[in-house]
Amino acid sequence: MKLSISDSIKNIPYYPKALMYGHEEGWVRLSSNENPYPPSEAVLETILDALSAVNRYPGGEKELKDDLAAHYGLAGDNFVIGNGSNELIEMSLRAMKHDSRDGIIVTESSFAFYEIAAKIYGYTVKKVPLKNLTTDLGAIARAIDDRTRIVFLNNPLNPTGTMYEDREFDDFIRSVPPDVLVVVDEAYAEFAQNPQFPGTLTYIKDYPVLIFRTFSKAYGLAGLRVGYSIGDADLVSFLERTKQPFSINLIACLAARAALKDEARLKKVLDNSAQARSFYYAELKAMGLEYVPSEANFVLIRIGDGAEEITRRLFERKVLVRFMGSYGFPDCIRISFGTPAENRKCIEELKKLT
Amino acid sequence: MKLSISDSIKNIPYYPKALMYGHEEGWVRLSSNENPYPPSEAVLETILDALSAVNRYPGGEKELKDDLAAHYGLAGDNFVIGNGSNELIEMSLRAMKHDSRDGIIVTESSFAFYEIAAKIYGYTVKKVPLKNLTTDLGAIARAIDDRTRIVFLNNPLNPTGTMYEDREFDDFIRSVPPDVLVVVDEAYAEFAQNPQFPGTLTYIKDYPVLIFRTFSKAYGLAGLRVGYSIGDADLVSFLERTKQPFSINLIACLAARAALKDEARLKKVLDNSAQARSFYYAELKAMGLEYVPSEANFVLIRIGDGAEEITRRLFERKVLVRFMGSYGFPDCIRISFGTPAENRKCIEELKKLT
Repeated sequence: MKLSISDSIKNIPYYPKALMYGHEEGWVRLSSNENPYPPSEAVLETILDALSAVNRYPGGEKELKDDLAAHYGLAGDNFVIGNGSNELIEMSLRAMKHDSRDGIIVTESSFAFYEIAAKIYGYTVKKVPLKNLTTDLGAIARAIDDRTRIVFLNNPLNPTGTMYEDREFDDFIRSVPPDVLVVVDEAYAEFAQNPQFPGTLTYIKDYPVLIFRTFSKAYGLAGLRVGYSIGDADLVSFLERTKQPFSINLIACLAARAALKDEARLKKVLDNSAQARSFYYAELKAMGLEYVPSEANFVLIRIGDGAEEITRRLFERKVLVRFMGSYGFPDCIRISFGTPAENRKCIEELKKLT
Repeated sequence: MKLSISDSIKNIPYYPKALMYGHEEGWVRLSSNENPYPPSEAVLETILDALSAVNRYPGGEKELKDDLAAHYGLAGDNFVIGNGSNELIEMSLRAMKHDSRDGIIVTESSFAFYEIAAKIYGYTVKKVPLKNLTTDLGAIARAIDDRTRIVFLNNPLNPTGTMYEDREFDDFIRSVPPDVLVVVDEAYAEFAQNPQFPGTLTYIKDYPVLIFRTFSKAYGLAGLRVGYSIGDADLVSFLERTKQPFSINLIACLAARAALKDEARLKKVLDNSAQARSFYYAELKAMGLEYVPSEANFVLIRIGDGAEEITRRLFERKVLVRFMGSYGFPDCIRISFGTPAENRKCIEELKKLT
């Protein structure tokens, strides 16, 4: 092949797409921080109604933005819709003026796609270590230099489940130069129970802040791919310009609107998550396993040397959890909260192995 | 706002996303080259089965690639799946090494997203005029210089419906320097009836050719967003590396696999398209309107000065066709082939207006 491939792309490892496993009956899938509940009847009915139109190009982003605007007390043009948060990450990277010496800052041990996407778009990547397993906003502020274009925060943080508080965020955002975009990925925000969780919405008017939220977690639509970003209308308009038409499929737009209205289902999901959290804390304590108190729908557990082996052996028993080696925690696993039955099954199998 | 937005993004006009119209009962939607038929029972059943898993992250790209490999007699790693062909266009642009002096070549009066996407990724764009309303491969070959990174062809061509033949493509591809990627977007290939339609598959081994195909047209899944690219495994692997995980939603993967198997439905769609073509030719001839003979599922019609006005008046009658001003044909409209009843309604309303 004589084509010249971009250097930043050549250095990315090639993984052919993974097989689909664990969707079948009998598997307990606690590896991807998914919502264990399928969509409610209301959402399913909306999808069914739309099926006969899937031969048509999708529409409905405008209507979804209007619904979100009403939900948050903002305007429709404060929102841009993405094919999952991944597309929002890409939009931010595309929008910012940069050359190959410019970079982004991410937290070490965080969601891997920030770094992968930054490399695809030719940014350098600076990683700031955690402090007490939490995003170290002070160190991030000190790491910003005149080559920094974007800071990606994730709060609550995957995979630790920890969060930084409103006062810390306020200090941080005031210290960031106005030409640095601060992306706050709040994919797990709905699960946070700590009243000090930052009210980032109030900052979008005066600071270069973009908030990412998603329908993949608390709203249970991971398979349909809908995320959204909230920000100043001017800033949001530049993200929108970088986006392909029709990136959100028809069913996803309609299902997201139905899910947003379905407050009873959201409450059920959050109640289940809170109960699961207490269940895991009690069981892990009884087993003498150390865990990180979590504001999200998962918990990070220290297993010790055998963490990878235990993940493999749980897999053999059709229980999927995530080994945390690639996140820099080779002695840990992460368990996503499932239904009560799934959580019991997971703990039962874990007990046999530890 | 003190953020520095990329120059190429700033120059793109901002359109807040369009409202969803024409999906309602009573509209005849012949403006977007969609398939007029909803998916078959087999596809709908596949989607229904998958609905209860939309809380899970999607999988199934590997399986879809294997099905495509069997369909085309190739290997799974000759395929990359995209969230519609738009994502494939973006992947190609991301993969190629380039700076702001490098460019792409497109046909004038072609699908607008090639140019928009090229600008998003910071390429210059050279447009080569049509010759007799057809892609001018000779002129494109002469336009290639040492700054050319990608040539985007579209065959059959939207919006004229014309095609270049196998011999022309063979001459062209042999003349292209080996460091220039040739993308052949064959979104409408299934509709072509001309036996001289190029067999581009035979070139992927020895030439830097990527073929784009889609489930949005003949397979009727525009609302779900699935396209795919066929090429040399090595080249395809670089596209794959530029792609976000989970860009294809769960339902789309499964529906595409079911649609690929449903040969009876494809035959029905292609038969309908062939009949619609004859119907429009006969009616337009009788009305004294000039049209371009088409190898696709639409027809370009010369209306004269009133083309935009007629589009508007058809809209008032709930018949959506596409005014071709933005494609450089201000005296033309493009009508996508609908069901027999939709086509009759469209001609009936057109007769009242011309």
